[in-house]
Amino acid sequence: MQTRWTDRYALRTQSMKSSVIRDLLKLTDEPGIISFAGGLPGADLFPIDAFRTAADLVLRRAGAHALQYSTTEGERPLREMIARHTSRYGIAVTADNVLITSGSQQALDLIGRVFLNPGDHVLVERPTYLGALQAWSAYQAEYLTVGLDADGMRLDELAAALRGGPKFIYALPNFQNPTGVTLSLERRQELVRLADEHGIPILEDDPYGQLRYDGEHLPSLVTLDAEYRGSGKASYSGNVLYLSTFSKTLAPGLRLGWIIGPVDVVRRLAQAKQGSDLHTSTFIQLLAHEVARSGFLDAHVRRLRHAYARRRDAMLAAMTRHFPPAVSWNVPAGGLFIWATLPSPLDAVTLLERALAAQVAFVPGTPFFPDGSGQQTLRLNFTNACEEAIDTGISRLGRVIAAAAGDCFPCP
Amino acid sequence: MQTRWTDRYALRTQSMKSSVIRDLLKLTDEPGIISFAGGLPGADLFPIDAFRTAADLVLRRAGAHALQYSTTEGERPLREMIARHTSRYGIAVTADNVLITSGSQQALDLIGRVFLNPGDHVLVERPTYLGALQAWSAYQAEYLTVGLDADGMRLDELAAALRGGPKFIYALPNFQNPTGVTLSLERRQELVRLADEHGIPILEDDPYGQLRYDGEHLPSLVTLDAEYRGSGKASYSGNVLYLSTFSKTLAPGLRLGWIIGPVDVVRRLAQAKQGSDLHTSTFIQLLAHEVARSGFLDAHVRRLRHAYARRRDAMLAAMTRHFPPAVSWNVPAGGLFIWATLPSPLDAVTLLERALAAQVAFVPGTPFFPDGSGQQTLRLNFTNACEEAIDTGISRLGRVIAAAAGDCFPCP
Repeated sequence: MQTRWTDRYALRTQSMKSSVIRDLLKLTDEPGIISFAGGLPGADLFPIDAFRTAADLVLRRAGAHALQYSTTEGERPLREMIARHTSRYGIAVTADNVLITSGSQQALDLIGRVFLNPGDHVLVERPTYLGALQAWSAYQAEYLTVGLDADGMRLDELAAALRGGPKFIYALPNFQNPTGVTLSLERRQELVRLADEHGIPILEDDPYGQLRYDGEHLPSLVTLDAEYRGSGKASYSGNVLYLSTFSKTLAPGLRLGWIIGPVDVVRRLAQAKQGSDLHTSTFIQLLAHEVARSGFLDAHVRRLRHAYARRRDAMLAAMTRHFPPAVSWNVPAGGLFIWATLPSPLDAVTLLERALAAQVAFVPGTPFFPDGSGQQTLRLNFTNACEEAIDTGISRLGRVIAAAAGDCFPCP
Repeated sequence: MQTRWTDRYALRTQSMKSSVIRDLLKLTDEPGIISFAGGLPGADLFPIDAFRTAADLVLRRAGAHALQYSTTEGERPLREMIARHTSRYGIAVTADNVLITSGSQQALDLIGRVFLNPGDHVLVERPTYLGALQAWSAYQAEYLTVGLDADGMRLDELAAALRGGPKFIYALPNFQNPTGVTLSLERRQELVRLADEHGIPILEDDPYGQLRYDGEHLPSLVTLDAEYRGSGKASYSGNVLYLSTFSKTLAPGLRLGWIIGPVDVVRRLAQAKQGSDLHTSTFIQLLAHEVARSGFLDAHVRRLRHAYARRRDAMLAAMTRHFPPAVSWNVPAGGLFIWATLPSPLDAVTLLERALAAQVAFVPGTPFFPDGSGQQTLRLNFTNACEEAIDTGISRLGRVIAAAAGDCFPCP
């Protein structure tokens, strides 16, 4: 039955498609399916006991505060801790540069709200994080894209895209979602320089930076920008807004992320956040602060790195063992994902239907491409399954690919 | 120092004013000030021990689930509990009619996002909840207003405002914020009838409905609409979207609210929520469910009603004792607020400066009026101070008003 509400949707939402991430996350719930689909950290590695201790401590010591309204910007001790953490990498950030958000997704939404007029262009990697496209399409953004290779954004495409006049550049320099690719140091420096030359600000999204399994930590764009501009010694006021989150290092069920930026931009984003959800849960903020402080977070991240590196290696080994030779993939140095390419004319969406029938799930790559290309690509998450399940799941997927390839290339 | 970000704000945010609620909430933090400003529940009444027990139980029994990503719509047991609660009032609501939101503020924001085009009108009470104005002004809404008297919305103004073609009607029928006024049963019925006649849907915001201190519970608009239309027996599909929250019955620091509506509208709002913050904290949802279930919430609300009724009575008695006779106010039957009117030409914003100097705070009424009127009005919160502090604070405020009135009307 139609109601008075049904035919009153705003123009901006009338084209709203069935939401891809959500539909995909649903796949992970079916019993018996081994899922490499969601961007899920390993639930078996959540520090549950640390959360139990911290929850009790916060409620016992500061229960009335934890359960009351708070300020939009976030709880000061948490903002200070995040500022100290960030300052370790060589830029001077204070609590006033930090806005706490309800997950990184809210940070993306607030940036769309504060900066994007309908028809504005955002320069994004091709492919790029689906949630960002979803957040900004709600503000009627359009996209300029720059392809990726093994060293990240292709600089030969970047200059042309910058001439298209984007409002800002969206970059995921570390173990990018969905491809797992990392932007090289030389390209980071060049990106910062080119962006400054064209007068275009950068949004650096870094959910995975701490989850590096091989090689050395590379300086973030926010650090390189501060160096390049000679700013950031006293307080941060550069061209880069930086996003991160506790979702991959502590737990996504908290919904805690943050934006680091110049003070006046943080203030404007906080005004937008106030209208969006007033503030992020006080209790959750105090809880994360209590769990993360005193070095626990660093120690926990070391444990995650060790465990996730083994899972990545298990998946790579299983892919070598079980996938037909015509499938190709990369070896990510960190993060959550391996990116694979099927031989033509195999299509990943069609393959997914067969895979689900065989009790294994992944994410087709095409929704990560603003132009809808990438039909042969798929994203595999290696962090949310134990090594045995990884082998079983990849073996199922290998059989499905081989069978589908057999259909496409029938024996003579 | 200007950055590349600073001059790139979207048109919609360039007129963004300093955020009134946030600035006001800051007043409540100054040491020594007795604050009747914020819409804060009594922190001394938070069921901290129940939260401690529940937090430990949830993490122990379902820690991995509580800390992992969840679905955008919300945790099913919580949605089912809210559906059962709502169905007690005579309409058939299921979990599919419920969307969990990150506080009621997010519900207001999502409704703006899904329904409001720039220039659309919303019909609101005059005065109305400031947070709603803030949420919808971000979508460039405009307002048609209907004045209030002791029985709520004035029906003589309603028909004219409906002819202005609002996208929807926003009503706070119970102990309205800011005035504490309740819409009478007769007017509720007439509002539902008139809205249907004009084909205009209703948004019913009910954060305080359970906090009634005198008289009988009145049926909600969602119930009356279902009765009027003869719908709602099997499943809800009426003209009213209904909002509520745990902020006033359990704790605002959770940031947990919900929208009840027809299934297709809930689905569309969930799509918008996915782009906004993916989902509300899994742990917080399970925590609230664990605390609220098995009758605890009902028992706790009975305790709140008892304590808040005493605080309301203490404030009313103190106002009678300490305020000059030219000040007038209402006697709210529930909720958190008393609404007072100063004698002309006293101005509440000017008075606030003097009040802060005298260590007492309130909220001037004018930001609650979309047209900026109401200069003589002020809102007093009676739930977040003990009876002794209420008497001391009101006595301070009485002296400030008397002194200000003396300045305005000098002795002959």
